[in-house]
Amino acid sequence: MPAIFKMTRQVEFAETDMAGIVHFVNFFRWMESCETAFYRSLELPLISFVPGQVVGWPRVNVSCTYRAPLRFNDTVEVTLFVKKLGTRSVTYLFQFHQAAVLVAAGEVTAVCVGAGEKGGMIAQPIPAAVRAKLQVAPPSAWGG
Amino acid sequence: MPAIFKMTRQVEFAETDMAGIVHFVNFFRWMESCETAFYRSLELPLISFVPGQVVGWPRVNVSCTYRAPLRFNDTVEVTLFVKKLGTRSVTYLFQFHQAAVLVAAGEVTAVCVGAGEKGGMIAQPIPAAVRAKLQVAPPSAWGG
Amino acid sequence: MPAIFKMTRQVEFAETDMAGIVHFVNFFRWMESCETAFYRSLELPLISFVPGQVVGWPRVNVSCTYRAPLRFNDTVEVTLFVKKLGTRSVTYLFQFHQAAVLVAAGEVTAVCVGAGEKGGMIAQPIPAAVRAKLQVAPPSAWGG
Amino acid sequence: MPAIFKMTRQVEFAETDMAGIVHFVNFFRWMESCETAFYRSLELPLISFVPGQVVGWPRVNVSCTYRAPLRFNDTVEVTLFVKKLGTRSVTYLFQFHQAAVLVAAGEVTAVCVGAGEKGGMIAQPIPAAVRAKLQVAPPSAWGG
Repeated sequence: MPAIFKMTRQVEFAETDMAGIVHFVNFFRWMESCETAFYRSLELPLISFVPGQVVGWPRVNVSCTYRAPLRFNDTVEVTLFVKKLGTRSVTYLFQFHQAAVLVAAGEVTAVCVGAGEKGGMIAQPIPAAVRAKLQVAPPSAWGG
Repeated sequence: MPAIFKMTRQVEFAETDMAGIVHFVNFFRWMESCETAFYRSLELPLISFVPGQVVGWPRVNVSCTYRAPLRFNDTVEVTLFVKKLGTRSVTYLFQFHQAAVLVAAGEVTAVCVGAGEKGGMIAQPIPAAVRAKLQVAPPSAWGG
Repeated sequence: MPAIFKMTRQVEFAETDMAGIVHFVNFFRWMESCETAFYRSLELPLISFVPGQVVGWPRVNVSCTYRAPLRFNDTVEVTLFVKKLGTRSVTYLFQFHQAAVLVAAGEVTAVCVGAGEKGGMIAQPIPAAVRAKLQVAPPSAWGG
Repeated sequence: MPAIFKMTRQVEFAETDMAGIVHFVNFFRWMESCETAFYRSLELPLISFVPGQVVGWPRVNVSCTYRAPLRFNDTVEVTLFVKKLGTRSVTYLFQFHQAAVLVAAGEVTAVCVGAGEKGGMIAQPIPAAVRAKLQVAPPSAWGG
């Protein structure tokens, strides 16, 4: 089912701050790690430098809501849901669970870009080979 | 006017990624740096370990929208606006400009916490000494 | 053999920089992650807030030598060797391999501290329960 | 005197860890920030993508010794000394002071690279235009 993907991590010492909890920016790093592992599972390159292919997926909008703190060595389960699939963009929903409790939820909208002129990036339609492997998760899957 | 605060930074090499642009999570680090500098300018401790005082401001909701990429050594101007002031929480709006162009905008809602039992944190009303120094920026200031 | 420990990671997008390779500071984060996983494997807490126990292991000296760059999605094998075991300190040697090629090597000397007065930290002998689980790796193991 | 350069920073919240002090990897980020500011002061590009010019300065060896911890909002003064200037490499020494007390010292050896074949990097002699602006600091300057 290529619309949902799960990854597990243990909180690292460097991810904590002086309040004794995970610093909030790390949830965005975990979202990206989960997206990368999702693409790896689909045998799709997330980033490609082959001419004519996708160059990358710069973020246009990201957000995260925090419900409970995580601490050093906690095990966190990250679940990715493909929420929307546009012509040139994709929106992922992420849920973070610790021991079956939802501790945070985030969203990332990324746009598909190819190489433009002078080393720039230009939005482009999601290539057919990529689109063929992506599917939107039903709202019931993420409690929407 | 304790409702708006500006800070300038230059993009560091470690803030870039292999796409040659600033990695998106750094905008959240800059929001927090600007909030810290804002508190310093008000002569308020952002974090205090004095018993009975504010312990910190954990984030409950954050978001960022990206319009244009930033690159190594670019100068970015970060502007903080106090958007909402609740009993126990505050919402900041941040605008990021490069050479007068708005390249990104973000929001952070943080809740005021004090020390709870067993080393935990518990939401508490924003102390009067802090509230006295904070003021909501008029929407006209941030183009709202 | 509690003197050597191996961990595998895949390079994350956020760990790269605009040169297209892993930013050098990440090797130190990986050293610490490997040390944490090593302690977990020994069922020892790396950090403890139980009064009278080890509070932590602040670093007093660290170094890293780089031989070849790593790139996004590369698999890196991190090997920890306990190189020296002092009364109050430990020195770890780390080797980083990609496809059996040594790409980097680092060292970390950390000192064992307990809680001092006024929230400070004070060096203390490594507790017997910890020392009982640590053993120095023979130089032949790390090619020394 | 283009052999010594000073930069001041205030410790950010995100730079602390659960031990309540600056996480040790940040000192390496500060070394790199100081190196970047040093190059800016010399009106030299640290990184250039102009064909035939320096592409970058990958690190081959780095180290840091820690004497005292730094905490949130502390002001740290970073001093860079050009310690050695080779044909293809440079070694910087960094000292970190807080209120005139030396809290840490580090070294970075970086090699000058240009663009090689297939997008790779290849060591090259430091260009004359760069070398003309660099000078070795006398050991007496850094207490060597």
